[in-house]
Amino acid sequence: MGQLGVALLGCGFVAEIHADCYRRFVPDARVEAVVGRNEAKTRAFAERFGIPRWFTDYHRALALDEVRIADVCLPNFLHAEATLAAAAAGKHVICEKPLCMNLQEADRMIAACKQAQVRLMYAEELCFTPKYVRAKTLVDEGALGKVYLVKQSEKHFGPHAEWFWDVTRSGGGVMLDMGCHAFEFIRWMLGKPKALSVWCQMGTYVHGDKTQGDDNSIAIVEFEGNAVGMAEESWAKPGGMDDRAEIYGSQGVTYADLLHGNALETFSQVGYGYAVEKAPDTKGWTFTIYEEAWNYGFPQELAHFVDCVKNGREPLETGEDGRAVLEIIMAAYESAAIGRRISLPFKTDAKIPIEPWLKARR
Amino acid sequence: MGQLGVALLGCGFVAEIHADCYRRFVPDARVEAVVGRNEAKTRAFAERFGIPRWFTDYHRALALDEVRIADVCLPNFLHAEATLAAAAAGKHVICEKPLCMNLQEADRMIAACKQAQVRLMYAEELCFTPKYVRAKTLVDEGALGKVYLVKQSEKHFGPHAEWFWDVTRSGGGVMLDMGCHAFEFIRWMLGKPKALSVWCQMGTYVHGDKTQGDDNSIAIVEFEGNAVGMAEESWAKPGGMDDRAEIYGSQGVTYADLLHGNALETFSQVGYGYAVEKAPDTKGWTFTIYEEAWNYGFPQELAHFVDCVKNGREPLETGEDGRAVLEIIMAAYESAAIGRRISLPFKTDAKIPIEPWLKARR
Amino acid sequence: MGQLGVALLGCGFVAEIHADCYRRFVPDARVEAVVGRNEAKTRAFAERFGIPRWFTDYHRALALDEVRIADVCLPNFLHAEATLAAAAAGKHVICEKPLCMNLQEADRMIAACKQAQVRLMYAEELCFTPKYVRAKTLVDEGALGKVYLVKQSEKHFGPHAEWFWDVTRSGGGVMLDMGCHAFEFIRWMLGKPKALSVWCQMGTYVHGDKTQGDDNSIAIVEFEGNAVGMAEESWAKPGGMDDRAEIYGSQGVTYADLLHGNALETFSQVGYGYAVEKAPDTKGWTFTIYEEAWNYGFPQELAHFVDCVKNGREPLETGEDGRAVLEIIMAAYESAAIGRRISLPFKTDAKIPIEPWLKARR
Amino acid sequence: MGQLGVALLGCGFVAEIHADCYRRFVPDARVEAVVGRNEAKTRAFAERFGIPRWFTDYHRALALDEVRIADVCLPNFLHAEATLAAAAAGKHVICEKPLCMNLQEADRMIAACKQAQVRLMYAEELCFTPKYVRAKTLVDEGALGKVYLVKQSEKHFGPHAEWFWDVTRSGGGVMLDMGCHAFEFIRWMLGKPKALSVWCQMGTYVHGDKTQGDDNSIAIVEFEGNAVGMAEESWAKPGGMDDRAEIYGSQGVTYADLLHGNALETFSQVGYGYAVEKAPDTKGWTFTIYEEAWNYGFPQELAHFVDCVKNGREPLETGEDGRAVLEIIMAAYESAAIGRRISLPFKTDAKIPIEPWLKARR
Repeated sequence: MGQLGVALLGCGFVAEIHADCYRRFVPDARVEAVVGRNEAKTRAFAERFGIPRWFTDYHRALALDEVRIADVCLPNFLHAEATLAAAAAGKHVICEKPLCMNLQEADRMIAACKQAQVRLMYAEELCFTPKYVRAKTLVDEGALGKVYLVKQSEKHFGPHAEWFWDVTRSGGGVMLDMGCHAFEFIRWMLGKPKALSVWCQMGTYVHGDKTQGDDNSIAIVEFEGNAVGMAEESWAKPGGMDDRAEIYGSQGVTYADLLHGNALETFSQVGYGYAVEKAPDTKGWTFTIYEEAWNYGFPQELAHFVDCVKNGREPLETGEDGRAVLEIIMAAYESAAIGRRISLPFKTDAKIPIEPWLKARR
Repeated sequence: MGQLGVALLGCGFVAEIHADCYRRFVPDARVEAVVGRNEAKTRAFAERFGIPRWFTDYHRALALDEVRIADVCLPNFLHAEATLAAAAAGKHVICEKPLCMNLQEADRMIAACKQAQVRLMYAEELCFTPKYVRAKTLVDEGALGKVYLVKQSEKHFGPHAEWFWDVTRSGGGVMLDMGCHAFEFIRWMLGKPKALSVWCQMGTYVHGDKTQGDDNSIAIVEFEGNAVGMAEESWAKPGGMDDRAEIYGSQGVTYADLLHGNALETFSQVGYGYAVEKAPDTKGWTFTIYEEAWNYGFPQELAHFVDCVKNGREPLETGEDGRAVLEIIMAAYESAAIGRRISLPFKTDAKIPIEPWLKARR
Repeated sequence: MGQLGVALLGCGFVAEIHADCYRRFVPDARVEAVVGRNEAKTRAFAERFGIPRWFTDYHRALALDEVRIADVCLPNFLHAEATLAAAAAGKHVICEKPLCMNLQEADRMIAACKQAQVRLMYAEELCFTPKYVRAKTLVDEGALGKVYLVKQSEKHFGPHAEWFWDVTRSGGGVMLDMGCHAFEFIRWMLGKPKALSVWCQMGTYVHGDKTQGDDNSIAIVEFEGNAVGMAEESWAKPGGMDDRAEIYGSQGVTYADLLHGNALETFSQVGYGYAVEKAPDTKGWTFTIYEEAWNYGFPQELAHFVDCVKNGREPLETGEDGRAVLEIIMAAYESAAIGRRISLPFKTDAKIPIEPWLKARR
Repeated sequence: MGQLGVALLGCGFVAEIHADCYRRFVPDARVEAVVGRNEAKTRAFAERFGIPRWFTDYHRALALDEVRIADVCLPNFLHAEATLAAAAAGKHVICEKPLCMNLQEADRMIAACKQAQVRLMYAEELCFTPKYVRAKTLVDEGALGKVYLVKQSEKHFGPHAEWFWDVTRSGGGVMLDMGCHAFEFIRWMLGKPKALSVWCQMGTYVHGDKTQGDDNSIAIVEFEGNAVGMAEESWAKPGGMDDRAEIYGSQGVTYADLLHGNALETFSQVGYGYAVEKAPDTKGWTFTIYEEAWNYGFPQELAHFVDCVKNGREPLETGEDGRAVLEIIMAAYESAAIGRRISLPFKTDAKIPIEPWLKARR
């Protein structure tokens, strides 16, 4: 089996990262088609990355024989239908985070892929981030003793695209958009134990003019085995992206700062092209990052899935993991809504995660 | 009015810091007497710091005319009775944190000092920590815009003295012992708005063989004016003391790390005398701190109170502040016990803060 | 003996720091008079710091009985004459760095103070900088083994006052202005061994339109006992002040960064009052420093000298130390001029340190 | 043209890095053979990395048709003869640093490859280190204005293999072993201007019992265009590897710390497998690095050369660059020997770089 063909569904922020990563870092894959709503933008995307075909209807991409993998980089509310269509077409699926809008969709996605005998990977890149992977091996080596607290945090000043502010399309605010990273990071770091309960506090502190969604959220998750996870997320943090983790054990700790930590410390009176994701300016002091996609683990993640498909292996991150994360997120919104710790497993008919919190605020 | 006489009640860890600070940094005060339970230890303390008198009964120190200030550095459960005795003797009081064991005691202390027309200062040194004072002026200058999130955290591997492990004497675990710092830091930074509610999660993760108290605790406090505080405390963090704060506003952020931040970065194959509070070793890499008392703000705090007494001014931190902190702590233990957000003001007959949580665990 | 009276000669940048330090941190001293060339500025200075007298002629201040200490904060070329006048008036002298303009002046200053039986302190504050003092004790404890390399560096974008650019008044560029700090730091850290030789490279890289002096200079000094010092100095470094040291031994190292190290890490969209010495802006990311004078050791230095005078003790830093530094500086300029390692002791008739380098460039 | 065959000459420290990088990161190359002196070690190396053939005589590897590239990872004194043999066999050559033992060898290597019409790449990985590549683009974007000072430093506690201590085999001490990195880094960063002069100071401070070579060295290089480079190198720095760069311009600066900067900050009471190159221990605090080869740029460097060979392009780093570095190194040893600035171009008949310095010390 030579190179595997990929159909890239979506041509926004994360699709660009994926396209660039396949080209530079994943020799076993080749993007055969890209799909977008907007004709001009999609064509330009295809040209820019040397992708031979582009479509505005993803079914056409999924119909291609050359395509073995559907890479779902669409807005959240389209994840489920695209995954179902891909499975129906016999394509393996790698789906961007969050897995989908609700637990019913998640169940359908998992079932459909199982039935079609295609792989479903949940694209949590933090499990492939080189610095965090090193932290994981520290834990696995026993360097920290018994781990009892895992913290992960992502903060910046607001999402890449306008549709995120509209919670009916995104399904929630920052706890959904970025909390999903933290929850899966914590689960992975602890060895994916059962989550027992969730506490969550959130609010709209800075962007109340733009969104009903939460723009700063904190969640605490208790796990089997006497361990705790904490997720801190913000769309209200000025000064550019922050991505950090801390792991506490009975015999050690490790602190990892992906961005300020790794950056060059730069002062420029005149400014320059690019410092880091969402940095508002490049004049004065900045923390200049480099090879961002590699440092986040995107190419490693995509290469892993391509390898899984080629060699018939189960991905590190599955649809079930994506579902477990979504369950925690839904419980977190419920907790923020009613001011109580929510026990897991959590059943809910909420159509979107933020639903109970929006109701409670009215 | 020349130098003010001070009676130091207690001769443990924090009393040493105070004694050293008065001598080196507070020319307007002179320690006239020290009081301790253990005769030999108290005498040695007096000799070491050149204090002219020592007693095992604090009433004798309070009876001295030369003494104008009683500095209460006793175990938590003695704060109230010592303060009441000092007030009765007409002495001004500076009382170490936490203010006392329960809200009833707090009310009595405040009332007694008012009636005796003596000042009562709540000794929260973080409000005098030079680095944090600079953060406060950043906030006051408007550098960060509207502040919506204040985080403060203290973590190490367990308390200075054995009696802390016994919750009947200490009144609680790390949320009481160190959470009090965070809560007053947050209140001060936000301009002391009303606290509206508390969420708290805690557990005994590492020291279950030594204590029934919580050794790792997280609390979230919502305040009037759409602001949030977060306190993270641990007695379960190996590798020496951590003391950090983060302040998030609509137009800026500031991060302050008192210890790793300020330290010399040292490698020693052979080791040396002292790196930082509670560091387990000085071989290998260490973060060497210097002038710890000054960097925490102890001399500034004591000088401030001496100045308040000399010049008839209200201290920055009062008994009412200490009571407000204690109320949040008691609500935090209640929240951890029942898994709910607790609204403030909070009334409780609990004798010690940890009471509801201990009951809930049984 | 109560408070000692001080006459502050000069009312520029460093005089302000001294005045503020005496007032806030040195209860044993009181500034009785300030002297400046400019009447309005001097009067305003006196008012601002509550100094009872001000003069435009320093002899009048030196004539006061209340004055026991002359604190020389004048431009470099006036250090010698002011010190001689103070000694003649029977006043103890603390003289700002560099000690003076040439070795002959240095010899006269030392001799005059000896004859008048007054103390002469060389005001090298880095020997009192708390973080560096801690590094010194690490060395003295043996934590680093045998020390073989000491580095110290100060860098910013140019001096406080215009007269520094004019080398005939300042006597040299950045190697004189800031190299003196490094050389004495290194001597002190190594236990003041004999300097054996100096290598120096310098140039005018950024400010050639303003000065003939060197604006970026590197010097390497070899010492008895197989140890090396390195001084890196710059007036050409954008982005605000840098002050760092590194100490390397056979069994350990320690790194100390006074400013970026200790600072709060702040982002502000709107800016604020002051970040750090010579920071060009406070918008965007800045490294916010606090209690600068204390962190540099100015109050500790002044208190030390007041204590020496009160108690008849030799200061840590003497006129001889200042002379030793000046000798290294003069050898450094000679080395840069002729491209050779210069052996010490070094004799020269140069009137100002930069003389040989200026000649060589013509 | 499919995958290019590589013969790996050498099976020591850097050969391992190369073998691992080809396998993980360079899909266009395949290692066809490995060569080592020791039969058992070489066979084990081949097995470990899945290399189909191994030899103890490199001529046999160079005779293979499948081999297009000779990757010279041999001790320094064998670089020239292996390169000449490879060129004679019509193989492209990538040669580890330093290029060779003297300038005459360098000339022969360059001429031989030219005549044989094969590419000769000088393997300076710092020019491919992602963090440093980002610094280079900052410079090229003009973010720092006119660059006038470039510093680069590598320090640890001594070389990988015993033969380095024997200067007759290695050709020199740390100025040769690690200074070569700094000199090429500086040349590259400045756009490879002509070097005008070199100053160098060195000594044997810690390892005098093991070597006659320099174990701590500082060199200053002046370049055309009013710019300066500084190289600081040490085999005498305890605590594990340091790799740092600083770039100063008229309008900006950037600081890059490859190791402490990027690392996880870890405390472990029990220790763990590996922290960073040459770290003496993993207990206590350590700076845990990850994906070291990638972060140094090894795979990028190898991929670049494979791409150059495939597509007929000149490598970024050529034999001429390696020669220019060697010339600076030889001038640096001469400078340290006679205590003078040495002008470039520099002619010398020295057989090995350290020759003049060894003579001068006798």
